[in-house]
Amino acid sequence: MADAEKIRGATKRVIKALDKGYQVVVVASARGKQTDELIASALELNPNPPERELDQLLSTGEQQTVSLFAMALDAAGYDAISFTGGQIRMITDNAHTKARIKSVDARRIHQQLEKGKIVLVAGFQGIDENENITTLGRGGSDTTAVALATALGAQECEIYTDVDGIYTTDPRIFKDAVKMDRISFDEMLELASLGAGVMHIRAVEFGKKYNVKIHVRSSFEEKEGTMIMHEVPQMEGVVVTGATIQKNMAKIDLNGVDNKPGNAAKTFAHLAKAKVVVNDIMQTEISTEKANLSFTIGISDLAAAKKAMEEIREELNCERIFVRDDIAEISVVGVGMRTHYGVADKLFSALATAKINIDSITTSEIRISCIVDKSQGEKALNAVCLAFELDKPAEQRTKHSG
Amino acid sequence: MADAEKIRGATKRVIKALDKGYQVVVVASARGKQTDELIASALELNPNPPERELDQLLSTGEQQTVSLFAMALDAAGYDAISFTGGQIRMITDNAHTKARIKSVDARRIHQQLEKGKIVLVAGFQGIDENENITTLGRGGSDTTAVALATALGAQECEIYTDVDGIYTTDPRIFKDAVKMDRISFDEMLELASLGAGVMHIRAVEFGKKYNVKIHVRSSFEEKEGTMIMHEVPQMEGVVVTGATIQKNMAKIDLNGVDNKPGNAAKTFAHLAKAKVVVNDIMQTEISTEKANLSFTIGISDLAAAKKAMEEIREELNCERIFVRDDIAEISVVGVGMRTHYGVADKLFSALATAKINIDSITTSEIRISCIVDKSQGEKALNAVCLAFELDKPAEQRTKHSG
Repeated sequence: MADAEKIRGATKRVIKALDKGYQVVVVASARGKQTDELIASALELNPNPPERELDQLLSTGEQQTVSLFAMALDAAGYDAISFTGGQIRMITDNAHTKARIKSVDARRIHQQLEKGKIVLVAGFQGIDENENITTLGRGGSDTTAVALATALGAQECEIYTDVDGIYTTDPRIFKDAVKMDRISFDEMLELASLGAGVMHIRAVEFGKKYNVKIHVRSSFEEKEGTMIMHEVPQMEGVVVTGATIQKNMAKIDLNGVDNKPGNAAKTFAHLAKAKVVVNDIMQTEISTEKANLSFTIGISDLAAAKKAMEEIREELNCERIFVRDDIAEISVVGVGMRTHYGVADKLFSALATAKINIDSITTSEIRISCIVDKSQGEKALNAVCLAFELDKPAEQRTKHSG
Repeated sequence: MADAEKIRGATKRVIKALDKGYQVVVVASARGKQTDELIASALELNPNPPERELDQLLSTGEQQTVSLFAMALDAAGYDAISFTGGQIRMITDNAHTKARIKSVDARRIHQQLEKGKIVLVAGFQGIDENENITTLGRGGSDTTAVALATALGAQECEIYTDVDGIYTTDPRIFKDAVKMDRISFDEMLELASLGAGVMHIRAVEFGKKYNVKIHVRSSFEEKEGTMIMHEVPQMEGVVVTGATIQKNMAKIDLNGVDNKPGNAAKTFAHLAKAKVVVNDIMQTEISTEKANLSFTIGISDLAAAKKAMEEIREELNCERIFVRDDIAEISVVGVGMRTHYGVADKLFSALATAKINIDSITTSEIRISCIVDKSQGEKALNAVCLAFELDKPAEQRTKHSG
């Protein structure tokens, strides 16, 4: 949200919801570039600002938005009241800049709703048990919104964004990608963890846990967006809901490590100590004594991961460390995979037809991922999208009966 | 305080105080023009913003300053922690935009001081008993500072301002005015109520009530400013400490009102209902049946006061309402007046010598005020300042023994 015009635009949405008979609670984020400006002010004074103080500073952005929003609603003749995270006892842990919500006291909001007021809540922020202000990190305002919807017993939470919903894949790469009418929480979690932006994982987790539907829609248009919800039977006919490509990845292969219990544990403990986040892990035996252990990481962690592996190479009795930073990961996601077979076949043959070599494969219950050459990544995504008909709305795709 | 350079400058002062062995608590106000900018944002959305929301908005300015200040201290290698008004339980009444402090919980500050931290507190703000954010109005950060000094049992509160202390009179009018080394709380209260800026009345009242010395000094220079403190014996030799001129005044004379009990009460009750603040009141009998009743007000209240008087003119049986908006009030203030005589004489003869006519006179225990023609106001102030030697430091003035 940015400045007076945007706030006025948002008040119109709120008034429309009131006219439909709803009680309305709005969670707002900071205006336009304000968070960036505050961070710049901080860095000017301290290149490495203490996180507690950074939260104390950044939380003012949302506080300003909600008070201005309340003033705009008052000017339009509506009674509104704004709250900071602290004022509604949005209690988090004390992990500053990336705190997790522990509880929220909905009473104060209910009291105001019962008085007929519109309630505006500053997103992205809470307080810890000692009243220190905390912030929730990326996607924080979405998480606030879903957490509040949960605490208030709301049936639906609307998230207004700069896109009009969730697409079957990235439309910048596969131009015929279509907007989904709905998607299950589990699918959305997989897509979000595969880097499909829009919704932050924690907001979706909250929605799943407490069964609050999340309606992702455009701030600029009236039309319906995408509903994130629990699975409904119709969803099962669709095997693949969405596809993703991740390009900022690297892969490390530890060839010929001693095939004995504890070596994998040692490897990943050492990576954790080096603060490297590991995505996927693949292990294969190559003899009774030796195995290959591979894992993928974000490319920004590559240097740290290489260093960590050199450190324990001898201990693992590893023959060779092989690094690839020229890869892309193509994934398909769908809850239908739980009950349907043939997804892997279809995926591999789509890639084979397009003459794309597969480096390695990982799967989860509702996802299959292939690592390919980065240079072939976009071509691979397009081939996969066409194979799974991701250019068509779900109801028009070929149905599978299991 | 404005922006990075000013914050860095202020950190140097704090570090200097630490080096002297003090524990330091800093109260900071908003940066530069920020409060004005926030008010402009509010007015853009609502010409008459709800006061609760205005407080919610404006309080962010001080919150930003203290968190940035803490970051600057951290960058300089010092451990600091910032608090909002709410975080230290600065409890006020719920009179938004002009709240009064009821209590403050110093424990959290003491805990941090004991850990060796510098404590930064957002000035100007508190919370009411329902956690609504309140602001203290004009001079609010000074009031916060003195209230905190009180709660912490500090012996002294330093107020850094854009002037280097309290002057015997306005140096823009009497160019030889001198800075006072010290002044009593009572004198400062009189001077402040007579429009001498620098310190706000409520901050001085706090200092007086809880005996916390207030050191008013420059943000830009190292030298000592003016200490506001309880009277010490040496002060008594000086009869007049300071002089003021008030130009934005008006006077209303009610000529020939019925001289009967209750008429004055009726008049001022009616003015209060019209929200007119009355400065001085003068009443004189002109016969057994009739009296003249006069009072002074701020010129901005003149229209409302005139209207109010027309409304009750008949009831008072007032013969004539006479209004003067071309006046100035010259006042001299000094605790020495309690024990010394001859101040009025000296004042009147100074004005007579300068050929200035006195319209009317009012006095309090430590103050004498004369109303004169506005056109002669500055000349009158100069004559008075010379008569009372306000161009010399207190210790160089002619002493009076009583």
